Amino acid sequence: MINFGVIGYGYWGPNLVRNLFEVAETQLIAVSDMREDRLQQVVSRYPSVEITTDYRHLLENPNIDAIAIATPVSTHYELALQALEHGKHVIVEKPMTSTSEQASHLIEEARRRKLTLLVDHTFVYTGAVRKIKEIVSSGELGDVLYYDSTRINLGLFQRDVDVIWDLAVHDLAIMDYILPSSPCAVAATGINHLFGGVENLAYLTMFFDENVIAHVNVNWLSPVKVRRTLVGGSKQMVVYDDMEPSEKIKVYDKGVTVNGSRDSVYKALVGYRSGDMYAPHLDVSEALKVEIQHFVECIRTGAEPITGGQAGLRVVRILESASRSMKHRGRLVDLRPPVPVPGSLLPHTLNPALNPVLTVGVA
Amino acid sequence: MINFGVIGYGYWGPNLVRNLFEVAETQLIAVSDMREDRLQQVVSRYPSVEITTDYRHLLENPNIDAIAIATPVSTHYELALQALEHGKHVIVEKPMTSTSEQASHLIEEARRRKLTLLVDHTFVYTGAVRKIKEIVSSGELGDVLYYDSTRINLGLFQRDVDVIWDLAVHDLAIMDYILPSSPCAVAATGINHLFGGVENLAYLTMFFDENVIAHVNVNWLSPVKVRRTLVGGSKQMVVYDDMEPSEKIKVYDKGVTVNGSRDSVYKALVGYRSGDMYAPHLDVSEALKVEIQHFVECIRTGAEPITGGQAGLRVVRILESASRSMKHRGRLVDLRPPVPVPGSLLPHTLNPALNPVLTVGVA
Amino acid sequence: MINFGVIGYGYWGPNLVRNLFEVAETQLIAVSDMREDRLQQVVSRYPSVEITTDYRHLLENPNIDAIAIATPVSTHYELALQALEHGKHVIVEKPMTSTSEQASHLIEEARRRKLTLLVDHTFVYTGAVRKIKEIVSSGELGDVLYYDSTRINLGLFQRDVDVIWDLAVHDLAIMDYILPSSPCAVAATGINHLFGGVENLAYLTMFFDENVIAHVNVNWLSPVKVRRTLVGGSKQMVVYDDMEPSEKIKVYDKGVTVNGSRDSVYKALVGYRSGDMYAPHLDVSEALKVEIQHFVECIRTGAEPITGGQAGLRVVRILESASRSMKHRGRLVDLRPPVPVPGSLLPHTLNPALNPVLTVGVA
Amino acid sequence: MINFGVIGYGYWGPNLVRNLFEVAETQLIAVSDMREDRLQQVVSRYPSVEITTDYRHLLENPNIDAIAIATPVSTHYELALQALEHGKHVIVEKPMTSTSEQASHLIEEARRRKLTLLVDHTFVYTGAVRKIKEIVSSGELGDVLYYDSTRINLGLFQRDVDVIWDLAVHDLAIMDYILPSSPCAVAATGINHLFGGVENLAYLTMFFDENVIAHVNVNWLSPVKVRRTLVGGSKQMVVYDDMEPSEKIKVYDKGVTVNGSRDSVYKALVGYRSGDMYAPHLDVSEALKVEIQHFVECIRTGAEPITGGQAGLRVVRILESASRSMKHRGRLVDLRPPVPVPGSLLPHTLNPALNPVLTVGVA
Repeated sequence: MINFGVIGYGYWGPNLVRNLFEVAETQLIAVSDMREDRLQQVVSRYPSVEITTDYRHLLENPNIDAIAIATPVSTHYELALQALEHGKHVIVEKPMTSTSEQASHLIEEARRRKLTLLVDHTFVYTGAVRKIKEIVSSGELGDVLYYDSTRINLGLFQRDVDVIWDLAVHDLAIMDYILPSSPCAVAATGINHLFGGVENLAYLTMFFDENVIAHVNVNWLSPVKVRRTLVGGSKQMVVYDDMEPSEKIKVYDKGVTVNGSRDSVYKALVGYRSGDMYAPHLDVSEALKVEIQHFVECIRTGAEPITGGQAGLRVVRILESASRSMKHRGRLVDLRPPVPVPGSLLPHTLNPALNPVLTVGVA
Repeated sequence: MINFGVIGYGYWGPNLVRNLFEVAETQLIAVSDMREDRLQQVVSRYPSVEITTDYRHLLENPNIDAIAIATPVSTHYELALQALEHGKHVIVEKPMTSTSEQASHLIEEARRRKLTLLVDHTFVYTGAVRKIKEIVSSGELGDVLYYDSTRINLGLFQRDVDVIWDLAVHDLAIMDYILPSSPCAVAATGINHLFGGVENLAYLTMFFDENVIAHVNVNWLSPVKVRRTLVGGSKQMVVYDDMEPSEKIKVYDKGVTVNGSRDSVYKALVGYRSGDMYAPHLDVSEALKVEIQHFVECIRTGAEPITGGQAGLRVVRILESASRSMKHRGRLVDLRPPVPVPGSLLPHTLNPALNPVLTVGVA
Repeated sequence: MINFGVIGYGYWGPNLVRNLFEVAETQLIAVSDMREDRLQQVVSRYPSVEITTDYRHLLENPNIDAIAIATPVSTHYELALQALEHGKHVIVEKPMTSTSEQASHLIEEARRRKLTLLVDHTFVYTGAVRKIKEIVSSGELGDVLYYDSTRINLGLFQRDVDVIWDLAVHDLAIMDYILPSSPCAVAATGINHLFGGVENLAYLTMFFDENVIAHVNVNWLSPVKVRRTLVGGSKQMVVYDDMEPSEKIKVYDKGVTVNGSRDSVYKALVGYRSGDMYAPHLDVSEALKVEIQHFVECIRTGAEPITGGQAGLRVVRILESASRSMKHRGRLVDLRPPVPVPGSLLPHTLNPALNPVLTVGVA
Repeated sequence: MINFGVIGYGYWGPNLVRNLFEVAETQLIAVSDMREDRLQQVVSRYPSVEITTDYRHLLENPNIDAIAIATPVSTHYELALQALEHGKHVIVEKPMTSTSEQASHLIEEARRRKLTLLVDHTFVYTGAVRKIKEIVSSGELGDVLYYDSTRINLGLFQRDVDVIWDLAVHDLAIMDYILPSSPCAVAATGINHLFGGVENLAYLTMFFDENVIAHVNVNWLSPVKVRRTLVGGSKQMVVYDDMEPSEKIKVYDKGVTVNGSRDSVYKALVGYRSGDMYAPHLDVSEALKVEIQHFVECIRTGAEPITGGQAGLRVVRILESASRSMKHRGRLVDLRPPVPVPGSLLPHTLNPALNPVLTVGVA
C-alpha cells in the first residue's frame, strides 16, 4: 500500500483524489490547498482524509510515501524538489516544470535519491494512445510521415501559461510516446487577442531528421471543441478523434505508392490505394487510474516510468523552444543539444539533401 | 447571348461546359483539348459543339465572345493573354497565373482593351461563402480575430504545383473575399514525402496589420477528407464545414469578454459567453452557374467582377510568397508593396507594440 | 435540511448518493443493499454514511425524512408503500411500479398521508427536455404532429423487465411532460432473440385523439448507441440528439404549408418551407441534482412534483398496455379509462372521420 | 448494342438517359413525355435523340429493343404490358405495379414472350448493398436477427402513393435481396397530416418464420435526412448509413452470447462481446449504370435479373399488405400464399411456440 498526499485541489486535484480511492494499492492520507473552500469539498466527500492549507505538513508526514502535485506550473519545480528532498516519490502535473533546467534538476535529484518521478502525461495512459503506440510499433503503419493534431475549444484563458503550454503539451507528450524519434527543430506562430495576455491561439511545426513533420493547432477561442490527431504512415494512416464516444481510433488502409526510384524524379508514377478502415476495440479504463497503477508498480520495482522525468524534460524543452520561436514569428529553433559549431544558428543536419535551399540560412 | 469557347476538357472543363448549357444567357460554341479521347466525350454528350485540338481555332472564331481556360496553371498566362489579344473576355481557372508579374500583365491587358477578366475562384460564389461575407460585413461577428482552415484529403499528387497552389488557393480566395483587409506577411512550412516531388502537405500562417491571424492546413495525404473553416470574431464565430450535406454554416454566439482597459493588463477579468448557435438557410445554386451569370453581367455592364484580375493577383502574390517561405522553413515573408527602407527584410509596421521582440529581426 | 435513506446501491444508487452529497439542502444518513460488497463501496467513499443489509432499519430511523428507492422494478411497490406507511417522503426509480393498480395505490397512500411522492423520470429534469417543453408550450412549433424516438444500444439484457419497460419508459416520461395530451391507444411489436427471455427489441406506436402519432424504437442489441428524438410541429420541428456533446437540441424552421381547405382534398397545393436552424443554449446542470432540488422544494411547499405519482401512473399504464399489445403482435390497445360501452374493444373516438375503415374492428 | 426508348422524363428519367449514354452497350433512340418542356430539355442536351409526346411511337419503332418506364406507379402496368406485347424488353421503375395481380400478369407475359423484365430496385445495385449481401451470404454475421431501417426526410408529398410506396419500397427491395427468407406477416401504422391526403409517415413491422423481425420507419415530414439501416446478426452486426460520404457500411464485431440451453431459460448467462469495427472498401460505380449493364447481360443470356419480375412482385405484395394493415391501425396481415385452412385469418405457423398467446387471434 502506497500512502499519498495531494498538493492542490483545484481543477485536476479532484481527479487524482478520486482515482487514489479507486486504485486498490493506494491510500490517500492528506490533501493540501491554499483555499479553505476547496478543502471543505474534500471533507464533505472524503471525511477520512486530513486537510491542511500548508503543504509542508504533507512533506513532513512520515506516513506519506508519495506526493501528487496538481498546482500551477510555476510552482511545480519548487514543490517537487522539496518533496524529493523529503524522500517522497512524486507525480507532477504536466508540464513538468517551467524550464528545462528545472526539469533536469528534478531528474537528477530523483535519480540520486532513487525515488520515482512521474510526469502526469495523462493521455499516454489512455486506451486510444496505447493502441496507436502498438500500431506504430508493430510496423503496421510503415514509416511515419506526419503527425497532425488539432486541439481547440473555448477554453479558460490562463494568466501564467500560454495556449502552447496548456494544450500543445498533450500532443508533445503523445508524440514523445508514440513516435520513433524526437523533433530536431520547431517553429511556432501565434497570437494573443487580449491585450497584455499570453497567446491564446498558436501553431507549432516540428521537423525531424527523417522526412517527417509534425504540426499542432491549439486555440482557446474556438466555438467548437475539436480533438483530432492524424498519424500518416507510408502503409496506413490513423485518425484519432477523442470527441467520438466510441471508435476513437480509426486505421485507414489508404495511401499512395510510388513506382520508380529516386532517380526517376518527376517521372514517378503515383498510385492511390483506398482500402478498408477498421476501428480497433479500445481499453476503456480511466487513464489516470492506469497511470497511478503504473506509478505504484515503478515504485515497487524501481523501473523508470514511461512518462518519467526524461519524457517530461523532452516535452518542456520543446515547449520553451516553441514559445521562443513564437516570439520571433516562427523563426526556426533548433532542438538538438548544442554542438561545436559556434556561431551557427542553423540546424546542422536538417536533411540538407532534401532542402538544399536551407543553406541560405534561417536566422 | 454570350458565345463561349472552352480550352481544356480535363478535370474542371466538363463542369464549365455543363454549366454553360445551364445558363440561359450563354451558348457553348467550341471546345479544344490536346487529347482526342476527351474531345470524343464532348461529342457524345454535346453533339452540337465544335471540337478541335488547336485552341487557336477558338481564338480566331469571330462568333466566340468569351474564352474559358481550364488548363494547367503554367499555361494560364499565355492562353489568357492571347485570348485578350483576340478581343475575347476571359474566365481563367484558379490560380490565375504562375507569378504575380504575369497576373499584373493580364490585368493591364484586359483594362486596356476594356475586356472582362474573371478568375474562377469558385468558392466565392457558393451560398455558404456568400453568407459568411454577409455575416462578416454586417458586423454581426464583431472584429474578425482569426481565420483557420483545414483542407485535407487523399488528393491527386500533382507535378507542376505544390499543395499550396492546389488547395490553399481556395482559402486565399475566400479570405480575399470575406476579410476586411489583406495579410501583410506570410510564413509557410511543408514537406514532400515523395522524393523529388513538390510539397504535399503544408501549413500557412498569415499576419495582418490588425491583431488578426490566419492559418491554412493543406494535405494531399490525409485518409479523411476535411473541409472546415473557422472565422473567429469578437462577438460571434462561424464554423463552415463544407462536408456537411446541409447546415454548412454554423454561427455561434460564443466568445470571451474582457472587463478592464489596456492599462489593467494582467488584471483583466475574462468572462465566457456561451449562447445559441444557428445555421442560416443557404442558397444551394451551383456556384459555377452563379459565377458564369456574374461574368455575363459584368461583360454587359463593364463592372469589375468580384473575383476579377486584382483578386486573382492578390491571391497569386500570397501563393508565391508562401512557396518562398516554405523553401526557407517558415521564414516570414513580407506581402506589402516595397517601401523606401532598403536593406530591411523586416516588415516595418508589424504591430511592433504587440511584438517588441520582433526587433531582433527575422532574416 | 432533508435527511435521506437510499435503498439499493446497484446501477443507479451511486448516482443518487453522489447527488445527495451535492445538493445543499439534503443529507444522506444511511444506505441499504442486500449485497455486502456494494455496501463496502459506500463505506470507502462515504465513511460517514450508515450502512445496512436490512432496508427496514432505514424506515424505522426517525432521523430519516425521505427514502430514495433504486431497486428492481418488481420491488418498487412494496418498498414505496412501506416507506409511505412509515411517514417518509419517497423518490422511486422509473418505472414507478409493475402495474397501474400498484401505482394508483401509492398515489392514494401519499395523498392520504400528505407525503411527497416523486417518480425518478430523470430525463424530464435535463436542460434539453426542459427546453423542448418550453418550445412546445410557447407555440413556437405550432401543432405537434408527431413524436418519433430511437433509443438503441448494446444494452444489458434484463430478466425481469423487457426492453419497453427499460428504455421506452424514458420516452413515455418525456412525452408525458412535453406533449399537450396523452395517447389514447397503443400498439407494440417486438421480439426476443434469447429463447425464454423477454423482448429485447420493440416498436411502439401511440395514437392520440388529435391527428398526432408517436413512435418509439427500442433495442438492446444494436451495435451503435442512438438516442434521437424528433418532435414534428406544423410550424417548426425539433431534433433532440442526446449523443451530441453539445447542441443536443436543434430547432428547424422547416415544414410544409397547405393552401386550400378540407374540401379541396387532393387538390391542395403543398408548399415546402426550408429555413434556418438554431440550437438553443442549454442548462447543463446534472438532471438528478435538479430533480432532488425539486423534490426538496415540493416537500417544503406541499406542491405536486412535475413527475409525481400521476405522471408515474400514466407511464406505467402505457407500459402495461404496450406489453399486452406486443404479446398479440401489435393489436391496438385502448388507453382511455373504461366507458359505458361494454363489449366494444374498439376505441370509441379514435378520430373515425380520418380512419373510417377502422369500423371493421381491431379485435 | 441494345437500343432503348425511355417513357417519362420527370424526376428519374434524366438519370436513366444519362446512364444509357454512359453504358457502352446501350444506345438511346427516343424519349417520350407528355410535357413539351421536358422534351425540350432532352433536345438541348442530347440533340441526337428523337422525342415524342406519344409513347406509342416508341413501342412501334422496330429499332428499339428495350423500353425503360419512368412514369407514375399507376401507369406502370399498362405501359409495361404494352411494351412486352410489342416485343420489347422492359425496365420498370419501382414499385413495379399498383397491385400484385398486375405484377403477376407482367411476369407471365414476359415469360411467355421470353423477354427480359427488370424492376428498377436501384439500391440493390449499389456497392453498399452488394457488400451487405456478400457479408450476409458469407455467414460472417451469423444468423440474421433483425433488419431495422430509418428513411426519413422533408420529402415531396405525393398524391397517388403514400410514403410506404414511395420510401419503404427501397427497404423492401434491399431486404428481398439480402435476407435469406421473406417475411410471413406485416403490420403497419401511419398517419397523414394533410387532410384528405395519403399517409406521410408510417411504420412497418415484418415477421418471419424464423425468429427474425424487420422494421422500417418512413417519413416525408422530417427536418433531417436519415438513411440508416441496421442488420443485426448473431455474430456481427452491420450499420449502413447512406448519408456518410464514405464508409457507408460498418461491420461491428459486437453482440451477446448465451451460455445455456433452451431448457435453462431465465438462468442463461448472457455475455457481451465488444470487438473491432471495420468499414470495407466499397465499389463506387453508379448503381443505375451497374443495373443497366446487368439488364443488357440478362437480355443477352436470357438469365433472370436479380431484380426481375418475381422480386418486383414480392415487394408489391408486401406494399399492398402494409397499406391494408395501416388502414386498420396495425392489424397483422398474412403475407403467405393462401393455404387450405379457410376461415382462419391467423398466420398458421407464426412460430407459435414462441408466441403462444397469439392463439387468441389477431383479427
